[in-house]
Amino acid sequence: MSITFDLPRRLAAEALGTAMLVATVVGSGIMADRFTDDVALSLLGNTIPTGAILVVLITVLGPLSGAHFNPAVTMVFALRREIEANAALFYVVAQIVGGIAGSVVAHAMFELPLIQISATVRTGTGQWLAEVVAAFGLVLTILAGLRFRLDAIPWLVGLYITAAYWFTASTSFANPAVAIARALSDTFAGIRPVDLPGFILAEIFGALLAMALAGWMLAEEEAAIHALNELKGAE
Amino acid sequence: MSITFDLPRRLAAEALGTAMLVATVVGSGIMADRFTDDVALSLLGNTIPTGAILVVLITVLGPLSGAHFNPAVTMVFALRREIEANAALFYVVAQIVGGIAGSVVAHAMFELPLIQISATVRTGTGQWLAEVVAAFGLVLTILAGLRFRLDAIPWLVGLYITAAYWFTASTSFANPAVAIARALSDTFAGIRPVDLPGFILAEIFGALLAMALAGWMLAEEEAAIHALNELKGAE
Amino acid sequence: MSITFDLPRRLAAEALGTAMLVATVVGSGIMADRFTDDVALSLLGNTIPTGAILVVLITVLGPLSGAHFNPAVTMVFALRREIEANAALFYVVAQIVGGIAGSVVAHAMFELPLIQISATVRTGTGQWLAEVVAAFGLVLTILAGLRFRLDAIPWLVGLYITAAYWFTASTSFANPAVAIARALSDTFAGIRPVDLPGFILAEIFGALLAMALAGWMLAEEEAAIHALNELKGAE
Amino acid sequence: MSITFDLPRRLAAEALGTAMLVATVVGSGIMADRFTDDVALSLLGNTIPTGAILVVLITVLGPLSGAHFNPAVTMVFALRREIEANAALFYVVAQIVGGIAGSVVAHAMFELPLIQISATVRTGTGQWLAEVVAAFGLVLTILAGLRFRLDAIPWLVGLYITAAYWFTASTSFANPAVAIARALSDTFAGIRPVDLPGFILAEIFGALLAMALAGWMLAEEEAAIHALNELKGAE
Repeated sequence: MSITFDLPRRLAAEALGTAMLVATVVGSGIMADRFTDDVALSLLGNTIPTGAILVVLITVLGPLSGAHFNPAVTMVFALRREIEANAALFYVVAQIVGGIAGSVVAHAMFELPLIQISATVRTGTGQWLAEVVAAFGLVLTILAGLRFRLDAIPWLVGLYITAAYWFTASTSFANPAVAIARALSDTFAGIRPVDLPGFILAEIFGALLAMALAGWMLAEEEAAIHALNELKGAE
Repeated sequence: MSITFDLPRRLAAEALGTAMLVATVVGSGIMADRFTDDVALSLLGNTIPTGAILVVLITVLGPLSGAHFNPAVTMVFALRREIEANAALFYVVAQIVGGIAGSVVAHAMFELPLIQISATVRTGTGQWLAEVVAAFGLVLTILAGLRFRLDAIPWLVGLYITAAYWFTASTSFANPAVAIARALSDTFAGIRPVDLPGFILAEIFGALLAMALAGWMLAEEEAAIHALNELKGAE
Repeated sequence: MSITFDLPRRLAAEALGTAMLVATVVGSGIMADRFTDDVALSLLGNTIPTGAILVVLITVLGPLSGAHFNPAVTMVFALRREIEANAALFYVVAQIVGGIAGSVVAHAMFELPLIQISATVRTGTGQWLAEVVAAFGLVLTILAGLRFRLDAIPWLVGLYITAAYWFTASTSFANPAVAIARALSDTFAGIRPVDLPGFILAEIFGALLAMALAGWMLAEEEAAIHALNELKGAE
Repeated sequence: MSITFDLPRRLAAEALGTAMLVATVVGSGIMADRFTDDVALSLLGNTIPTGAILVVLITVLGPLSGAHFNPAVTMVFALRREIEANAALFYVVAQIVGGIAGSVVAHAMFELPLIQISATVRTGTGQWLAEVVAAFGLVLTILAGLRFRLDAIPWLVGLYITAAYWFTASTSFANPAVAIARALSDTFAGIRPVDLPGFILAEIFGALLAMALAGWMLAEEEAAIHALNELKGAE
């Protein structure tokens, strides 16, 4: 993938991708919630579209911007010096603006007030731990995917989030920009604005934890040295 | 994929593909509706088969005709001069005829009147916006897929529609030929004939919007120039 | 895939694959039926495992035997002279024996009488047409897959059956050996023995129809001639 | 995949992978159980995340440790001398420790007592046969996948378990380490400690059965000889 796109196109991709991701999360939540009283079924109607759209968005926008759609992911790439600090800041702004736009578009499609303030309580140590786990798994999946199976990353992220919707007690927000956008939707996918800081801090912590673990576990140098020594031993 | 098939085979592929797509949309809607009172579950029983059959049909018929199955998609390719205007007209006819046949076959399998007129109201600004979004996302997915991951297009379209069934308020028709065929089915997937023009116009508008955005965002020339300049800067 | 396996291994693969396919169809039907009163949910609990196991079985046993698991498919390959008539007969026997074994194993796992006679009525023109459509689509998927995307066939068949479970009024048996095995199970997936001939004839007819259409639509010779003529015209 | 990772990294991968697998099985079971009274829907909410996370974990951790996450699988590789006996023992310890940690983390996320003793009865010949079948199919899938489609193994295992959740009467534990961890969770996915020996023995037996069958059915030597003879015959 040698062609590099300029910053406006990359930012457009980040904003559009985060917008479509949030429109899917919020929109499918509204749809599911309208059609059933069974919360597990609503969650399934929320999970399957989100996992599916992630595969699509990362595949088609990844070559443009890297398809972060997530400030925690951009932060990790900035710390690894795989994106310039300046661009990273613009990325985060594009993600937040795009995410909010996605929430607004979802509301418009379902003829609801465009801007809402969520009243859904999501707080407490269980929820925070869940967000640490969710972001940890997401970032580890991305970093190991980049190391071993670049072409599979869209699928890996889509499937990871499909699972994390159910195995984390928080339904896996794992994304500060998406969390902010969801705070502006008083629907199935919402979160009270006052609960945002806890979620965002937990997500950042989980992302850093994964980055640290991956730094050791996937380390090329030591592994290569080990492999070389084995080869020598085999001579 | 260098072998070119002649027009009759291409039209047969378009008609057959659209027929099987509509038979799946209409048939699975009837099946789901018969078996449950939960509308979310019916929608799930409608979504999963549709997403699945799209992957199959685009994979096996794509090499024959390009697997448009959709006049909005054919229009975009005609405007981009990737299909001759004449062939495009035949494609659209084949899609509409095939779509209607698919509806008839679905009714025959479920022993219902072969031709029906839907009474399902689908109108209003929310629905129209939803169809703009649905077609916009579909065409953007296809154009970016053609640019970056040709082999993945069947999956991308199948997954995109899987998501769009839930995140758009209209359950994502996104296809004028399929919309016409669904107007002839007074079942779960139906739409009143009087509501067709609004849907079709919205779908065409969404497709054109995606084409315009892709024209800028995916532009090869500028991106290549940018890449060349970067290479020069690196020397 | 140049290595050829001997006939005993190929027959073992056909018997084992059909056994696991039927064990999945029958077993997941029993499981789903026990756990819910919603028939759509039971069908979903029947569909997802069947689609999933087909991808697995065709991938891992395909290199051994071709992974037919279906007398209608074996018949088509025999008529196309892609399998010897003798081997084809042995294949069909292995499929039927394997299918019945799969039914017995499913019953044993769920502690039900090992051999049962189904009382589920599945008959009438709607059902027969559905089986024609189901087998037609399956064989067309396989033949076009063999022509264009050999490596994708396991996924294509798994996804096709996932869709066909819902869009055909018969839930898509599409397989005489599986139909026979399902006649010996008085559970969710069953079919009255007296209804077998109608289903099997319809499946054979659908398979032959697909073979005839594919013979024209996918024809290499004419397509190649057409491509050559185009090339000449371009000179 | 020529780089070899050292034993600490491999053990970390086995422990982490088994932990995330168990956290998914147990966590999604708790989530599903809380949100619905329909047991089939709970099982679906348990199945989809488990299948999805298996694809992810095997893809991203497979290059590190082989992604066994399962003492029965490690045993088979040890018997085939594809892993040293010493390393195999460490693998099994890492899997059991990781599995228990996964159960604890799931409980912590859902604010339940961290260590619990399951009271869910899972015993009897039907259940044991189901575990034999489940482990047999899993190991056969892995061994045939290794032989024919190395790159597809993550998908094959994820899809196999997705199916086996439904077609085996035991919901397919198929894994002694995961079974032990589930005995420490008195939730949807639990199993009474007293029922563990029956499950573990059945799983080991099923794994050995698959290993024996694969030893014959996939045998390279005889197949190669056969292919050679055919080539000679063709001269």
